[in-house]
Amino acid sequence: MDTFKSHLQLFNSHLENYKVDINLRAPRELYEPEHYILSLGGKRLRPLLAIISCDLFGKDPSLALNSALCVELFHNFSLIHDDILDEAPLRRNNPTVHVKWNTNIAILSGDVMLVKAFEVLKNYDAKEFTQLFSIFSKTSIEVCEGQQLDMNFENQNSITVDDYIQMITKKTAVLLGCSLQMGAVNAGASSVDQDHIYEFGKHLGIAFQLLDDTLDAYSTDEQSFGKQIGGDIIANKKTFLVLKALELANVDQAKKLNELMSQKKSDNTKKIQSVIAIFDELGVKTLCEAEADRHTKIAIDHLLKINADRTKLKTLENFSLALLKRNI
Amino acid sequence: MDTFKSHLQLFNSHLENYKVDINLRAPRELYEPEHYILSLGGKRLRPLLAIISCDLFGKDPSLALNSALCVELFHNFSLIHDDILDEAPLRRNNPTVHVKWNTNIAILSGDVMLVKAFEVLKNYDAKEFTQLFSIFSKTSIEVCEGQQLDMNFENQNSITVDDYIQMITKKTAVLLGCSLQMGAVNAGASSVDQDHIYEFGKHLGIAFQLLDDTLDAYSTDEQSFGKQIGGDIIANKKTFLVLKALELANVDQAKKLNELMSQKKSDNTKKIQSVIAIFDELGVKTLCEAEADRHTKIAIDHLLKINADRTKLKTLENFSLALLKRNI
Repeated sequence: MDTFKSHLQLFNSHLENYKVDINLRAPRELYEPEHYILSLGGKRLRPLLAIISCDLFGKDPSLALNSALCVELFHNFSLIHDDILDEAPLRRNNPTVHVKWNTNIAILSGDVMLVKAFEVLKNYDAKEFTQLFSIFSKTSIEVCEGQQLDMNFENQNSITVDDYIQMITKKTAVLLGCSLQMGAVNAGASSVDQDHIYEFGKHLGIAFQLLDDTLDAYSTDEQSFGKQIGGDIIANKKTFLVLKALELANVDQAKKLNELMSQKKSDNTKKIQSVIAIFDELGVKTLCEAEADRHTKIAIDHLLKINADRTKLKTLENFSLALLKRNI
Repeated sequence: MDTFKSHLQLFNSHLENYKVDINLRAPRELYEPEHYILSLGGKRLRPLLAIISCDLFGKDPSLALNSALCVELFHNFSLIHDDILDEAPLRRNNPTVHVKWNTNIAILSGDVMLVKAFEVLKNYDAKEFTQLFSIFSKTSIEVCEGQQLDMNFENQNSITVDDYIQMITKKTAVLLGCSLQMGAVNAGASSVDQDHIYEFGKHLGIAFQLLDDTLDAYSTDEQSFGKQIGGDIIANKKTFLVLKALELANVDQAKKLNELMSQKKSDNTKKIQSVIAIFDELGVKTLCEAEADRHTKIAIDHLLKINADRTKLKTLENFSLALLKRNI
């Protein structure tokens, strides 16, 4: 993140000001959870992308601060509600909002954060506001749709790899594209360039999620991965690896994989080993990485079509590649 | 509602068009609950107020249709989430969304409805949109705050009548004011007139809720009241009647009332009778009606200060008085 350290500092100071305001509001039960989740840290990737994008198009990066705040508030709203949906006890090693308070407070404080995400955009003038609003409201609906698709997958048997790509696009990737596009709007970028930066972010997000799937199964460093290795396998998540494996498997392999992926409580170490053995037989790790590469290339192609300073474009390209390699 | 039958028909046809669009969207799990709750009926009071207000200021009432849709979507979003919070099994004699589907779907489909409520405002031009957005986002945050205050009251002992008025103002009244103000914006009303119509709606909402409190205890016609008589007493709700009674009670009366209002499972008929006996001893029904009257007068004062057609103002005054008397 060192490349964009000053951007991050800019955002963090803006966020701290916002948190001071949140601390003054009542009823406290509604605003403490918002203050809490915003204090749990995180990479602040989405706000950073908004600010980077504004700077890329040659404008004062601080023009994007409220777009950055908007996407970070939305991201944290979605974490609060998703954690209820997933019954997650922990978020960044701390109790989730519905555990620390209760589900009712988590629902309601999430609702308010969603409205606040929209409201901070009101700091822009009417024309800019309406442009930002359109991108952001479309994206926020897509993110909810992606979350619903993900929930549906748990009980569906005939999911294809394409369904999966559509789901991760909505659940994860479009918000990255949206963050970048909002920063571009703040910089007054052309609509062609706005499209390119959006597609860059979207495909980068897809590639990131696909690589996340392989790391979940194959990472050897839980610390740097940041999550439990094999977590997707234990939770019977229908990731790209699983869906591709089922697509390529012979009858015996498919039967075995389906059996393993329906186990709810079992010897996790053995389960992980058995699932990975099938992945290896079918070579799905390589196929997943190839698909991630394909999306990375699409992302970079869009990036390099943008009419902006070459050095800044190269810096952003390097930043995105480092992000995919988890060096950020 | 006969006075404004054509306005209601106008809105219903707009809502049906919106529901056709909702029916085309996927994933179905996300949009079916929205379609379902919008099909459960209701008085459509809030959208009607937006349309009435636009007409009052001499403009084509259809200009307010998307403001009307916005407040109705928001109202129904809040019903979906509030029903989770209240663990309510029924809404308008039908299963609530979290019962018919599940809590996760109710959270997520509510979230999408909240975004959609904002999004329909995008049908207005940039200047009108930003004005409407400001009023609506402020109000939607207040409604969430009101809901949180209501939840807090369950576990708080030192609530005053003023706290209660603040809570019902936020939870119920401001959305009526907001609906009317949005219609006024659509009609291009002056900011002074916008303020008056907002205050009219807000104080009307407070009066309506106060009279609802007395009807809950004293109505003799469950059918026309539309809810279980004594429901607030059974649920130990700290209404105006209870809070005023506690304010006026001697030591014995306060002790008895507090005891009754802490019973969770008891002989409801006897409990209702005993609580009402204390209400009667202290004359709080009259005091509650007087407070409702006071707010009705403030409402009408604001209404009559508006620079608009006298006949239309009178029609709206009569409509609001009929609403308070439950003749609508």
